[in-house]
Amino acid sequence: MACNQFQHTIHSLHSHCGWNNAYEPVLHAAPGETILFECRDAAGGHYTQSSTSADIARMDPDKVNPVTGPVYVDGAEPGDALKITIGDISPSGFGWTAIIPGFGLLADQFADPRLHVWSYDTTVVEPATYGPAGRVPLKPFIGTIGLAPAENSLHSVIPPRNVGGNMDIKDIARGTVLYLPVEVKGALLSVGDTHAAQGDGEVCGTAIESAMDVAVTIDLVKGGAPQSPRFTTPGPVSRHLDAKGYEVTTGIGPDLMEAARDAVRRMIDLLGSEHGMTPEDAYMLSSVCADLRISEIVDAPNWVVSFYFPRMVME
Amino acid sequence: MACNQFQHTIHSLHSHCGWNNAYEPVLHAAPGETILFECRDAAGGHYTQSSTSADIARMDPDKVNPVTGPVYVDGAEPGDALKITIGDISPSGFGWTAIIPGFGLLADQFADPRLHVWSYDTTVVEPATYGPAGRVPLKPFIGTIGLAPAENSLHSVIPPRNVGGNMDIKDIARGTVLYLPVEVKGALLSVGDTHAAQGDGEVCGTAIESAMDVAVTIDLVKGGAPQSPRFTTPGPVSRHLDAKGYEVTTGIGPDLMEAARDAVRRMIDLLGSEHGMTPEDAYMLSSVCADLRISEIVDAPNWVVSFYFPRMVME
Repeated sequence: MACNQFQHTIHSLHSHCGWNNAYEPVLHAAPGETILFECRDAAGGHYTQSSTSADIARMDPDKVNPVTGPVYVDGAEPGDALKITIGDISPSGFGWTAIIPGFGLLADQFADPRLHVWSYDTTVVEPATYGPAGRVPLKPFIGTIGLAPAENSLHSVIPPRNVGGNMDIKDIARGTVLYLPVEVKGALLSVGDTHAAQGDGEVCGTAIESAMDVAVTIDLVKGGAPQSPRFTTPGPVSRHLDAKGYEVTTGIGPDLMEAARDAVRRMIDLLGSEHGMTPEDAYMLSSVCADLRISEIVDAPNWVVSFYFPRMVME
Repeated sequence: MACNQFQHTIHSLHSHCGWNNAYEPVLHAAPGETILFECRDAAGGHYTQSSTSADIARMDPDKVNPVTGPVYVDGAEPGDALKITIGDISPSGFGWTAIIPGFGLLADQFADPRLHVWSYDTTVVEPATYGPAGRVPLKPFIGTIGLAPAENSLHSVIPPRNVGGNMDIKDIARGTVLYLPVEVKGALLSVGDTHAAQGDGEVCGTAIESAMDVAVTIDLVKGGAPQSPRFTTPGPVSRHLDAKGYEVTTGIGPDLMEAARDAVRRMIDLLGSEHGMTPEDAYMLSSVCADLRISEIVDAPNWVVSFYFPRMVME
């Protein structure tokens, strides 16, 4: 990225853990300006190419998911929408995916830590390889982007909220326009937790976690706060990985969470029987490429959650 | 469709309501054979081009969702998978979408009946029009396809089960290969409730409900019963409507059902404010084209459900 595209650059040195409206802004910016955020990965650089599963226990939980910021937006007041246009994203080429004990949709079944490290094409043209056969198409996006909550205190960074945060929505990517509700004067925008690829759900709890530089242009819609984040994508969202269609498993029942768990378990079984993959590999690979969809939510008392695995990844 | 493609045709006269393993088969067929199912719409032909919302109350609830069949598959035994390849689908060109009191994701907010009737291109090349501006790309599929349950009794047709049934999965369309677990000798396959278009979730409770003829080829995988339905799509599933991207609303919180309801409510509000649509029209239009996805299901205690509305429909 050429530096003259931006009015401001925030280095990743200026990051914080958790959300707190008492954090001092590291920058003041005006509507219309473009800011380059240097984002650390969700482990703040803890892992390297030579890390192993044993390093997972050595991660300090208080340092998880640092976000760069906060930015004070001139003129932003509670009730406004902060309109954020995602610009270029420059990924680092190094990433990691982990099964972290106690975390993830199937935490009860995957008790042991497991780390996979990735080295990928920074132009994201080539898919990232996983084992002998897996090829994961890449689509860099922002996992955590949010504003300071109105409630005075330190809030965990893990759960997303109506002000945004750790939403892990894989389509908050280049060209997307995101609207977040401002709850405090100046909005206090922070950005981090960039991912090189993820499926809807992020089922094992992690994506291809990877440090990136992200350009965002900010603007205000006075009085236009949405009730929760909304966004507009500039075009199709799945064409980088849908060409060969999908293998799909389902979960059917009266509870969406259990149906989602069933669908994911059945995909892990299917990847094992069809490709000889270990459950741990199938779980992590699914997390970075397969999508949880609610196929049906009206035929009481049973709903259908489907898990779409792109066939391109294994064919 | 040329009749010589099929070994059998079952006319819609041979339909049943509910699932019951005591129903007599209307046909015996062998693995490898192709059967043409004439399918009624979910109201069994109750609505016509001149129907109005007042006709909703006149629908006999005992006659809802008739399915054509059942077909006894030679050699099928409990524990097998019935492998079903969906062939050509010939839609009728007439369809309906309704808000049915007491039914649908937001039944508590939409108390009054509302009917919309559609007349659409049977080649499904042209989108179906909705009001002055809405243009809904079509993708005909099978809403209800299932086998008789092992448990002896009459089961409602409304909820789907692990043997399939009213799954309303919009990608059970031409070229898809579906695997259902056989629970009774002969499998007892029935097909119906065809839809010309639907979004993931089918949020108002109905799609573009429409009678169609459907060709399916059956086969058996001995001992290969999946735990619940699974399927393989032959290619991309959303390219008929994704070219202009999506407008997306979210629901964020600890309950997936409430998050889904929030996301849909917010889309209804957005379609109202951006396009002047009534809540009823926005609800029905969303039901036939917009997708509920689970963006994030691991960042406890809050999950993110997103509702993706294809911009092509209103632009």
